[in-house]
Amino acid sequence: MRIPNHIGVIPDGNRRWAVKNGLPKSEGYNHGLLPGLQLFKLCQEIGVKELTYYGFTMDNTKRKNEQTKAFTQECINAVKLLSQEDTSLLVLGNTESDKFPEELLPYTKRINFGQGGMKVNLLVNYGWHWDLSALSTKDGKSKKSIIGSLKSRDISKIDLIIRWGERRRLSGFLPAQSVYSDFYVVDSYWPDFEPQHFYDALDWYNQQDITLGG
Amino acid sequence: MRIPNHIGVIPDGNRRWAVKNGLPKSEGYNHGLLPGLQLFKLCQEIGVKELTYYGFTMDNTKRKNEQTKAFTQECINAVKLLSQEDTSLLVLGNTESDKFPEELLPYTKRINFGQGGMKVNLLVNYGWHWDLSALSTKDGKSKKSIIGSLKSRDISKIDLIIRWGERRRLSGFLPAQSVYSDFYVVDSYWPDFEPQHFYDALDWYNQQDITLGG
Repeated sequence: MRIPNHIGVIPDGNRRWAVKNGLPKSEGYNHGLLPGLQLFKLCQEIGVKELTYYGFTMDNTKRKNEQTKAFTQECINAVKLLSQEDTSLLVLGNTESDKFPEELLPYTKRINFGQGGMKVNLLVNYGWHWDLSALSTKDGKSKKSIIGSLKSRDISKIDLIIRWGERRRLSGFLPAQSVYSDFYVVDSYWPDFEPQHFYDALDWYNQQDITLGG
Repeated sequence: MRIPNHIGVIPDGNRRWAVKNGLPKSEGYNHGLLPGLQLFKLCQEIGVKELTYYGFTMDNTKRKNEQTKAFTQECINAVKLLSQEDTSLLVLGNTESDKFPEELLPYTKRINFGQGGMKVNLLVNYGWHWDLSALSTKDGKSKKSIIGSLKSRDISKIDLIIRWGERRRLSGFLPAQSVYSDFYVVDSYWPDFEPQHFYDALDWYNQQDITLGG
């Protein structure tokens, strides 16, 4: 079976899950924390080399204050959980804004926890325009040198993007690294995560051929 | 019904269609010409404002010579057909390479044909890295100023991308304009285009909500 080196995760549908379950929208995010850890362990098990979670974007912070507070807190909690595991962790996003939580500043350079291992990236207060705004071609115009001059230069190209919550769009997720990504959509909301979603995505990915335009 | 302002088209599966029909791979492209005109007319009818076709990429030209020759010729033929219609046409791509057909140089600035009208963009010898390589933030770092400094600055953000040929990836198609695009995949190969594919995509698009991250 062909295992993707790098998986991107768009854990969408937290608010819709909350509404469906009679909870205030802001309470959905908390139920997305353990699925994230579960998915991390599944990826680790099968030998994925890099895993990137879409935490929240600069645009997301225009939402109601209690929602912004809630998803920010869950990103902090996610980092606490991940730092108990064997991983090489990076938090990436616009730190020059008060929307970036101070608690996560120490993680904005990649740090090994436990025995290190699978790279995990968490996008926090990320923006596609912020990412591209670093771009300079002084080192050349090849794909490699373009990616090398992004704010997200420490994140490699993505093989498979899995989005929960039914929507079929990238929503600004790492536009340069996702140019050739295979894109799999799970209809279930993220807090309803089940390992089978992940296995189905891998099965589907296994059937895709990679041409890279050739 | 909510009609997308700007539709992006990835007309994939020409070679697979040729193989399925017992033809040499390079003969598939020719059968993609009329579907393109048909789709143009359908979009015109319902009031789409802009339509962008993925012609070929710089990577595509690494294919066998007879294939490269064939899809290049079909892009030239497409422009000939479109210039008989009411449209505002732009051909966009890397002209500083011998893979860009000379015949299309006169169309690299937007020109009105007939009574003008719907904008049509055809990407010819396009590359996502080539597109981004123009990026400069001297005019600011907003989304608008980032898009304004791309090579593809004359192409607006895309609401709906329809890809024929089953694959679920963007393959480098206008990474900045497609950050929030809804992405619809048709399993049929492009030369097997039917108007119903288009209507199904519109129906699906009509059911999507637009959040733009908010």
